[in-house]
Amino acid sequence: MKQTRAERMALNFDGIDALVIANASEPFLDSTYWYLTGCTSGTFESARAVVTAGGELHTFVSILEEESAKEGEGIVHVYHKDDERKEAMKEVLKGCGRIGVNYGSAAYGSVMWMKSFLDDDVQFVDASRTIAETVAVKDEREIVSISKACAITSKVAQNLPDMISEGCSEREIASEMDIRMLRLGGSGVAFDTIAAFGAYSSQPHHMPCDYRLKKGDTALFDFGSKYEMYCADLTRTIFLGDPDDRLKRAYEVVKRAQEAGLAQIREGASAESVDAAARELIDSTEFKGLFIHSFGHGIGMDIHQPIYVSPRSKNILKAGNVISAEPGIYIPGLGGIRIEDTVLVTEDGYRLLTEYDHEMTAVDQ
Amino acid sequence: MKQTRAERMALNFDGIDALVIANASEPFLDSTYWYLTGCTSGTFESARAVVTAGGELHTFVSILEEESAKEGEGIVHVYHKDDERKEAMKEVLKGCGRIGVNYGSAAYGSVMWMKSFLDDDVQFVDASRTIAETVAVKDEREIVSISKACAITSKVAQNLPDMISEGCSEREIASEMDIRMLRLGGSGVAFDTIAAFGAYSSQPHHMPCDYRLKKGDTALFDFGSKYEMYCADLTRTIFLGDPDDRLKRAYEVVKRAQEAGLAQIREGASAESVDAAARELIDSTEFKGLFIHSFGHGIGMDIHQPIYVSPRSKNILKAGNVISAEPGIYIPGLGGIRIEDTVLVTEDGYRLLTEYDHEMTAVDQ
Repeated sequence: MKQTRAERMALNFDGIDALVIANASEPFLDSTYWYLTGCTSGTFESARAVVTAGGELHTFVSILEEESAKEGEGIVHVYHKDDERKEAMKEVLKGCGRIGVNYGSAAYGSVMWMKSFLDDDVQFVDASRTIAETVAVKDEREIVSISKACAITSKVAQNLPDMISEGCSEREIASEMDIRMLRLGGSGVAFDTIAAFGAYSSQPHHMPCDYRLKKGDTALFDFGSKYEMYCADLTRTIFLGDPDDRLKRAYEVVKRAQEAGLAQIREGASAESVDAAARELIDSTEFKGLFIHSFGHGIGMDIHQPIYVSPRSKNILKAGNVISAEPGIYIPGLGGIRIEDTVLVTEDGYRLLTEYDHEMTAVDQ
Repeated sequence: MKQTRAERMALNFDGIDALVIANASEPFLDSTYWYLTGCTSGTFESARAVVTAGGELHTFVSILEEESAKEGEGIVHVYHKDDERKEAMKEVLKGCGRIGVNYGSAAYGSVMWMKSFLDDDVQFVDASRTIAETVAVKDEREIVSISKACAITSKVAQNLPDMISEGCSEREIASEMDIRMLRLGGSGVAFDTIAAFGAYSSQPHHMPCDYRLKKGDTALFDFGSKYEMYCADLTRTIFLGDPDDRLKRAYEVVKRAQEAGLAQIREGASAESVDAAARELIDSTEFKGLFIHSFGHGIGMDIHQPIYVSPRSKNILKAGNVISAEPGIYIPGLGGIRIEDTVLVTEDGYRLLTEYDHEMTAVDQ
C-alpha cells in the first residue's frame, strides 16, 4: 500500500515522539496542516494535527469544520469545547516525552496551551527540519497542482510582450497580470506581483509604483499563480525598444547562467554546486558581483520552502524537489535582468514546469 | 503634539514593561508591526518591534529592509548578523522583567530565541488584549484607508444585479468580483470571496463551487477588498426571478434586524446589546433560532479583529471602532439571507462605510 504523507513525515522524525501542527487564527495557519490532511480548502482555524511515531495522523477540529475535515486524511477528533480538545490530544499524546513543533509557525500561545494540560516534563523541540525534509519531496498529486499553477503563470508570461507599451505603468500591468491569472483559473497569487521598469528593475524587491515605461527600459516581471494551494514562481524580463548595450549583454549572461545552473540539477547534486555554476559564469564576465541573491529556493504550498540553492547551502537535491532557478544581474541606476523558472528535480536531471520564450525579447510599441 | 500609535499602545499596557512584536517568515507576519510603524508595504520577515513603557517604538530589521523601515515610525536598528540583533534588543529591553507578546501570532521559536539571550527570570506574558484594545480604535489615516477599501467593495456590490444571470456559476461570479475589485484599485481581497447560490447560501461558510444559478435562487455574496493593507467586509443577497415567499419574508426581517442592531451602535454601547437588538427581532418572527452566528466583529488590517458583537460579548463600543453589521437567517435546504455593512462607531451613533441598495432586489435575467 502507498505510504501516506504522515507516514513519510514519521520516517523523518529526529528524536521526537510525536509532531504537533497548530493553527492559530488566520493568517497564522500552517500549510503543513493541509499537506498532511490533503485538504485543499477550509480554514481550520485553531485546528491541530498530530503525527505519531508510527505515522498515524490525528486531527482535532471544531464542530464547524467536521465535514471539511472528514474529506481529508486522518482520524478526525471533533470537539465542541476546549476541554474536549484537551482530553482528546492528551490521549493521543500519552507517553510522548518529546513533542516536535514547527518553531517558525506554531504560536507561542498554542504551545503554552499544550503545556497547560500535558505533563510538566514534556519537552517541546523544533521539528522544522523534519517538516522541511518531508514537504520538500513532492508526490504525484502535488506535482499535478504545481504544474497547473505553472501553466497558468506561463500563459501570462507568454502574453507579456503584447501587454506592455510605452507609457504603461508598473501598477497597471501588475494588476492586469493578476486579473489574467484569475481568468485562467488561478486561485489567487502566490505572492505580490512584481513589475519593475527601468532603473527600478535593479532593486530585486521593488514593488509596483506609478512609474511609466519608457523606450529603452527593462521591464522585469516576477509573479506566480496559486492552484489548489500550490505556488508557481516565474520571472520574465523584456525590453521596450532598444536598450543600453550593457543590458543586452547582461541578458545573454543571465540566460547562460541559468542554463549553467540547470545543467547541474539532478538527484544527489548539492544545491551549492547549482548556485556556484551560475555564479561563476556571471562572475567571469564584466558583471562580476552583480548577482546579489541566491540561485533558488524550494517551492510548494509556501512560495519559499526551505531548500536553499545558495553559496553556503547544505542541501542535497532529491528527485521530487521543486525549486526556482533565478539568476539575475542588477546594475544600479540602469536596470536589472532576471530569468526564472520553476523546476522539478528528477533522478537524472530536471524538468521545467514553466514555459515561455527565453530568448531576448524587445517590444517595439 | 499628536500621540503616536506606540504611545497609545503603551497607555494600554496591563502589567508589562515592554511589548515585543515578532515576525517570522511569510505568512507568519503580525499586522501589529505595520500598525505601529505605519508602513504600508515591505515584507519585514524576521523583523521585531518593541514598544517601551514610555511609548517609544524601536524596530529591528535586516540590512535589506533598512530603506523601507526608515519610511516608517520608530527608531530603526539595522542588523547584519543575528548577534547584532540580539545585542540591540537586549539593550532596549534592559530592566524589563515582564515582556508582553502576542500569544496568537508570535512564533514559539521567536520567544525561545529571546529566552536564549535575555535573563532567565524574564517572563513572557500574553499581550493580545493590550494590542486588541489599541488597534480597535482607528485613527484618521486608518479610516481613510478602510473607507477606500469599502468604496471599492461597494462599487462591485452595486454591480452585482447586472453580473448575474440564469446559469452563471458561483465560481465564475466570485472570480469576476475579484477581478473588478482589482480593476477599481484594490490591492487584493480581504478574504476568499463567497458566492453561494440556492440551498448553498444556507451554509454561512460555503465556498464557491460549480453550481449554476437557477430561477428562484438566492444569490449571496460576502466579500471585501483590501486597500493600503486595510479590509472591507460586505454581504449582499439578491434573488434571481421570484423566490419562495419565506425567503422574501426572511429578507425583510434581516433588513429590519440590521437596522435594529445599527440603532444601538454608539460610543459607550455594549456590543452585546447591539447583537441582542437584532437577535430579538429575528427571534420574534417565524425565523426564531435561524440567526446562527454573531452580529459582527472588528475589522482593520485583519478581517477579524477582536471586537465581538455577540450574545456573550464583554466589549463596550468606542468611537473609532470599525465593525461589521451582518445579521442573517439560514433556512436549511432552501437558502440563506445575510445583509452586511462595514460600520464606523461614532460618538453619537455610527457611519456606514459601505453603500449599496439594501432594498430587496430580484433580477429577471
